[in-house]
Amino acid sequence: MVVGEIAVETDVVIIGGGPGGYAAAIRLGQLGKSVVLIEKEEMGGVCLNRGCIPSKALIHAAGQYHQLSQLSSLGIHLPEGNAFFSMPDWKFWKSDVVKTLQKGVTQLCEANGVTIVKGNAIFLSSDRIGVETDGDFERFTFQHAIIATGSRPYIPSPLHTDGAVILDSTNVLQLDRVPESLAIIGGGYIGMEIGMAFAKLGTEVTIIEAAERILSQVSAHLTQDVVKHAKKLGMRIKTSSKVEAITVENGFARVMICSEKGDKEIIVHEKALITIGRIPNTNEIGLKQAGIDLDERGYIPVDQTGRTNQRHIFAIGDTTTGPALAHRAAKQGVVAAESIAGLPSSFDTPYVPYVIFTEPQIAGVGLTKEQAVERGYQVKSASFPYRGNGRAITTGAGNGFAEVIVDARTHMLLGMHIVGEDASNLIGEGVLALEMAARVEDLAWTIHAHPTLSEMWQEAAEGVLGHAIHMLNKND
Amino acid sequence: MVVGEIAVETDVVIIGGGPGGYAAAIRLGQLGKSVVLIEKEEMGGVCLNRGCIPSKALIHAAGQYHQLSQLSSLGIHLPEGNAFFSMPDWKFWKSDVVKTLQKGVTQLCEANGVTIVKGNAIFLSSDRIGVETDGDFERFTFQHAIIATGSRPYIPSPLHTDGAVILDSTNVLQLDRVPESLAIIGGGYIGMEIGMAFAKLGTEVTIIEAAERILSQVSAHLTQDVVKHAKKLGMRIKTSSKVEAITVENGFARVMICSEKGDKEIIVHEKALITIGRIPNTNEIGLKQAGIDLDERGYIPVDQTGRTNQRHIFAIGDTTTGPALAHRAAKQGVVAAESIAGLPSSFDTPYVPYVIFTEPQIAGVGLTKEQAVERGYQVKSASFPYRGNGRAITTGAGNGFAEVIVDARTHMLLGMHIVGEDASNLIGEGVLALEMAARVEDLAWTIHAHPTLSEMWQEAAEGVLGHAIHMLNKND
Repeated sequence: MVVGEIAVETDVVIIGGGPGGYAAAIRLGQLGKSVVLIEKEEMGGVCLNRGCIPSKALIHAAGQYHQLSQLSSLGIHLPEGNAFFSMPDWKFWKSDVVKTLQKGVTQLCEANGVTIVKGNAIFLSSDRIGVETDGDFERFTFQHAIIATGSRPYIPSPLHTDGAVILDSTNVLQLDRVPESLAIIGGGYIGMEIGMAFAKLGTEVTIIEAAERILSQVSAHLTQDVVKHAKKLGMRIKTSSKVEAITVENGFARVMICSEKGDKEIIVHEKALITIGRIPNTNEIGLKQAGIDLDERGYIPVDQTGRTNQRHIFAIGDTTTGPALAHRAAKQGVVAAESIAGLPSSFDTPYVPYVIFTEPQIAGVGLTKEQAVERGYQVKSASFPYRGNGRAITTGAGNGFAEVIVDARTHMLLGMHIVGEDASNLIGEGVLALEMAARVEDLAWTIHAHPTLSEMWQEAAEGVLGHAIHMLNKND
Repeated sequence: MVVGEIAVETDVVIIGGGPGGYAAAIRLGQLGKSVVLIEKEEMGGVCLNRGCIPSKALIHAAGQYHQLSQLSSLGIHLPEGNAFFSMPDWKFWKSDVVKTLQKGVTQLCEANGVTIVKGNAIFLSSDRIGVETDGDFERFTFQHAIIATGSRPYIPSPLHTDGAVILDSTNVLQLDRVPESLAIIGGGYIGMEIGMAFAKLGTEVTIIEAAERILSQVSAHLTQDVVKHAKKLGMRIKTSSKVEAITVENGFARVMICSEKGDKEIIVHEKALITIGRIPNTNEIGLKQAGIDLDERGYIPVDQTGRTNQRHIFAIGDTTTGPALAHRAAKQGVVAAESIAGLPSSFDTPYVPYVIFTEPQIAGVGLTKEQAVERGYQVKSASFPYRGNGRAITTGAGNGFAEVIVDARTHMLLGMHIVGEDASNLIGEGVLALEMAARVEDLAWTIHAHPTLSEMWQEAAEGVLGHAIHMLNKND
């Protein structure tokens, strides 16, 4: 590197145009900073292009397809014959969805004065960055930088993907037809979401999970309805099972499994999907040149504002430890942007909700009962079942429950969790309740519209107080 | 009436087993009171048997049926031919839904020690009531009574219904087949909900509304997407139009309309539905004998606890002035029950949400912008469109918006309104926010899960503050 080469000056450089990076860029634009956002692929990152958005588009279509078989009970009779799901047609629609959102994000960045540069970024020093663009190498000097490079699927050796038979979560959404059978290595939320979607489309799905149970990130009792529904869809779930190798034979995936007891089994399926976890993209952007520390797992240590050990450089999203969730990244992005602009801002809330788009959906915020007990709380809790809710029954959504967890001493809400139809949207009220430091009475006294699913929050809260109307009240 | 006739003593008599009456009964049972609940028809009242629940069951089925035509864009191809909607099959399912809920309500009453008596109730005095049961006449003396007799459709003379061609909102859900054409007199929420459902099932629907616009109970800007969608469904909407007469000719309904300008028109449709409004059921239960006052419109004046001029007798739900909503009635029932049991309790919140199950749905709580301005607030507001929300786009739900209305001086939330997919559930968060006296910052700083529709509340709140991420910020 020759000192003195021409470099463009900018207030802030952001590396990565995902939900964290673009949120930071837009917020900095609003605050009057000049921003260069470097993205090597498409704006929107994994979430928009290969993750949340396309997977939810598949889940939606698969849900609609699968529901066809249940319509006759409502009085809707389809013409004789079989419905058919076309992956190419679905991909056409999905591309349209993705492009719409990409375009929106790009326009919003531009409208806020953000300069988008396409290419691979590499730190040259703690105040200079280079970008390999199409046949060129651009340089920028910056006052501040935000690292928002995200994460990628983790494929532990000796496993590998080939993009054709052994797939990662990106490849599986690019298939040209619905596979006859699919082995999914990893029963976390990505594996279960995608597995259930394909099972609904008619694929024979086997989930292979090393832990004792699927979805081990959340409390066991929240996953029971999902396990039940997975089995109803014909999915096989093998827990406490390690994958020793995956090979391709005659074009099929051959998965060698070893149970905890040492029993070996070979599963031959048309495709295999590896969804074991994700690792941060922190190894190819020259962090050493910028003097930025990494922890032993490759994450960038940061404080509550997102500052790294280089105080003018921030890291957000999946490059930092914590749940790999778009809404966490976006909030971190906004906090970093505001901190750079000198505003008091901090990621100071523990209330980051999670949502799992299985059937039924699972969502939650705050503590689980076990966590609350572990922390020394005297806990009261109650849950209200979907089958007791009028709206759920009129829409055929009778599985699941809403659960409210409360500090018995102060009646402060500690956690809210929900399993069932529309849990993803209903948890919004839960996050607000915890964020506002609501007591269980606040929730119980709030008049929830009838007939809606949100009434279940009120009933669960009333249940904690011993006076739910639509269920028998038990104390626990 | 012979004084001294044998009468059963009870702490509380409740007249009417609808959502207000049974909620009061269960709450009183929880509080250790002996309760006799008198219901002349089925437990659950209009809401459960002939209103909210069956209408939502029709709306759900009609939505599913109509959506079939949109599936091919998702890659789902149905077999050749036409789908068919069978009203008898739908009614079978609907009856099952209704019976499930009836049974649930009955069991909950019984489990709480409530005695249910079937028959027509009539006050004999201010502490005695008689019930005409099957060939018998039972008498009860009470310490307290709760009047929860609800309301019925209002059919202004000279109009009338015949249950076969000229229908009310109960009859229309009992039809044996989907009518070819349906004239709906009254473009309020019942008329629009049912009209859109039948339009989706293929009925030619004409809405006739005396006011200048449909859904005149809510702000005009909240109804625009509904009007647009109604037209897309082929519905005709005639506003500022009065119905002068409806006759039956050759089995068809002949509706004579007069526009504001005096233009006359005759609409001939297979059926006509009158949904002009509701009137309280306060004229056949001997209120005079109990010494209870009525207002000039037949409603029973009550205080915040539900007490009538006879301080030991309460009235709740549609017999009192206010919106005829099940969740208002239920809350009033609980308040009356607690007041009777000597607990401090009061209906002291202005935050009663409304939900309209049109397409798109409309829901709201608190003030509209116009109401806030009228009351002297300096108002800030912002709305976020569904088409900017990732979850909405992946589920084909791009119509509508979420709107947040704020006191510019204090930043207190004044109102939240939402038009679009799942508005009914999403308003739950709005009611909690207002009930908790949230400031707009509380909503903006709450991390909403991605990708969910609830993110729109956060973005609208950020919009008020001038820093939404996913839209350009305008001040107003």
